Amino acid sequence: MYKQIKLLDHYIIAGPEATDVFSALFSSGDYKDRQFFLLADKNTEKFCLPELMKFIPDNINVPVKVVEAGEKHKNLNTAESLWQFLVDHKADRDSVLVNLGGGVITDIGGFAASTFKRGISYINIPTTLMAMVDAAIGGKTAVNTAGIKNAAGTFHQPDSVYIYPRFLNTLPREQLLSGYAEILKYALIMDRQLWSIMRNKPFDEFDSLEDLITFSVLIKAEIVEKDPAEKDLRKILNFGHTFGHAFEALMNRRGENITHGHAVAAGIICETYLSAVINDTEKELYQEVKQTILGNFSKLKLSENDKNDLVDIMLNDKKNKQGKINFSLLTGSGKCRYDQFVPKELIIESLNNYLL
Amino acid sequence: MYKQIKLLDHYIIAGPEATDVFSALFSSGDYKDRQFFLLADKNTEKFCLPELMKFIPDNINVPVKVVEAGEKHKNLNTAESLWQFLVDHKADRDSVLVNLGGGVITDIGGFAASTFKRGISYINIPTTLMAMVDAAIGGKTAVNTAGIKNAAGTFHQPDSVYIYPRFLNTLPREQLLSGYAEILKYALIMDRQLWSIMRNKPFDEFDSLEDLITFSVLIKAEIVEKDPAEKDLRKILNFGHTFGHAFEALMNRRGENITHGHAVAAGIICETYLSAVINDTEKELYQEVKQTILGNFSKLKLSENDKNDLVDIMLNDKKNKQGKINFSLLTGSGKCRYDQFVPKELIIESLNNYLL
Repeated sequence: MYKQIKLLDHYIIAGPEATDVFSALFSSGDYKDRQFFLLADKNTEKFCLPELMKFIPDNINVPVKVVEAGEKHKNLNTAESLWQFLVDHKADRDSVLVNLGGGVITDIGGFAASTFKRGISYINIPTTLMAMVDAAIGGKTAVNTAGIKNAAGTFHQPDSVYIYPRFLNTLPREQLLSGYAEILKYALIMDRQLWSIMRNKPFDEFDSLEDLITFSVLIKAEIVEKDPAEKDLRKILNFGHTFGHAFEALMNRRGENITHGHAVAAGIICETYLSAVINDTEKELYQEVKQTILGNFSKLKLSENDKNDLVDIMLNDKKNKQGKINFSLLTGSGKCRYDQFVPKELIIESLNNYLL
Repeated sequence: MYKQIKLLDHYIIAGPEATDVFSALFSSGDYKDRQFFLLADKNTEKFCLPELMKFIPDNINVPVKVVEAGEKHKNLNTAESLWQFLVDHKADRDSVLVNLGGGVITDIGGFAASTFKRGISYINIPTTLMAMVDAAIGGKTAVNTAGIKNAAGTFHQPDSVYIYPRFLNTLPREQLLSGYAEILKYALIMDRQLWSIMRNKPFDEFDSLEDLITFSVLIKAEIVEKDPAEKDLRKILNFGHTFGHAFEALMNRRGENITHGHAVAAGIICETYLSAVINDTEKELYQEVKQTILGNFSKLKLSENDKNDLVDIMLNDKKNKQGKINFSLLTGSGKCRYDQFVPKELIIESLNNYLL
């Protein structure tokens, strides 16, 4: 069983048999006589590559490049080592890079592919829930540089994406929860019905994540289809992320670990508060959101100083224009509006309410 | 006076008053309230920037980033320093980078802009004949990495290009000749009439280069318009360049300097020979081409070993597929065909004829 979701001129294949569809690729006309390369990190090399290899025909030689795992390796050195790997193996403009990993791997692999010889094909095989529902979908590629996360990157769609839920069995619960935060976001910005299923329900009560993945990909594909280069509608995907990125940056400075999803979950609470004040959403929504999220994610600890630091960090967000802090905010459950500007005082107020 | 040439959704403005059109940009609706940044190298900072500054309104502050001149600085370190400069000056997604320089500057500036925050606008102001007729036009951006010229890059069109021929007054004759080789190429691949003007005429007999620039830009724009991502027709622009790049690489290894145009000019002779054999072009064409080019460019000195080295270098060209050497060859004067494959023996034969 698998679902096939169309996005621009490619497909996202999701389900237990996604790997069979991947396997069929090698004998399809479009990919005949083309060289394949695979990018993995040390984790996916160990936990996912042996399983994936079963689906690559024996007569196909796929050189594998393994890089260190983790966000701090999503840098130009890694990109350069990947270009060097491709050059060393005589990759040409028809070559195809398969990215096997989480968001770091799909971001950096996508970046290296989209710029190698001015752009070769790449395929994403996400191995984390976060990558399955978000990072691997939609053609955003990125590398961290100049001290800024994702400071360089491209919009360059993959040839296809294969979502094989069995890879999730290798993930710690904390990593699953991280992806779950993005699913909550999709429900809140686009799907009132999905939100009615998720609200007040603990993550652990879901028997299977397959349907949640499919719903998420459908929502993201619908948005990206309409606005691939994030000129307007796609900005609503940033809901929860202006605060989310600031929380991540703050924890980074402190040397504390936080998953992207944990930061986004806290961001969703704060930005739902802003939504209530600015867009006058239903009264119950903020309480529901806060309760649902704090039922799954611990509350972050923040000092008075932290609050001001968070505002400063948000002032540097790449979505800003001319020094104003730009948000995408809910206008109700399942509805979102982009390019909303919020005064600093209200940001502090939302943090105070988060901490209550 | 200026000419306005449309290419996809932007314009190339060429002529003595191109800078006036550039000046008007700052007060146009599309660019109001956007931050401008300027990239120059040590040469253009000295010889071109003071002149250009006269055309930037006094009330507009344009931070300038100056990098070292030369191909060897077209690397990731320079790209990173440019991203850092943009971050330090709080550039946002609406910011505009103005590239003032030759092909190295328009390539690296275009690359950094096309990837900064997944793509900001850039404007090219070419200062060399080579950049005016070729590098600055058509949206190819590039950086040298993994030991390979232009190994990474993007297709990303500029917002506009301003060709101000007065900048040519600052160039040594050798640099002008380098650009002249590309103009000869345009005539041979697309414009029989232009070729009839240029053949057997020494470069120094042209009183002004303005018309040659306009003809060249018109030809390149016509080709790029039809095939911006070099999937088919645009490949004809590589005529002379498979050999040309090999000559450059060979001279590099020897530690000898050669301009790009000098290498391409020699390449045009060799590839016109291949055209005569493979496509049975008119007999006189090869002699005309050889005579015209050797009237302007000295003959390269090549040993027996060099010939084999050149073949090896061509086998690594990025236009190859599956180990076959790919050429774009003339089918007559003013006509060219891409994706032509040539046996190694004929390559040696063309070199022997070049040396005769």
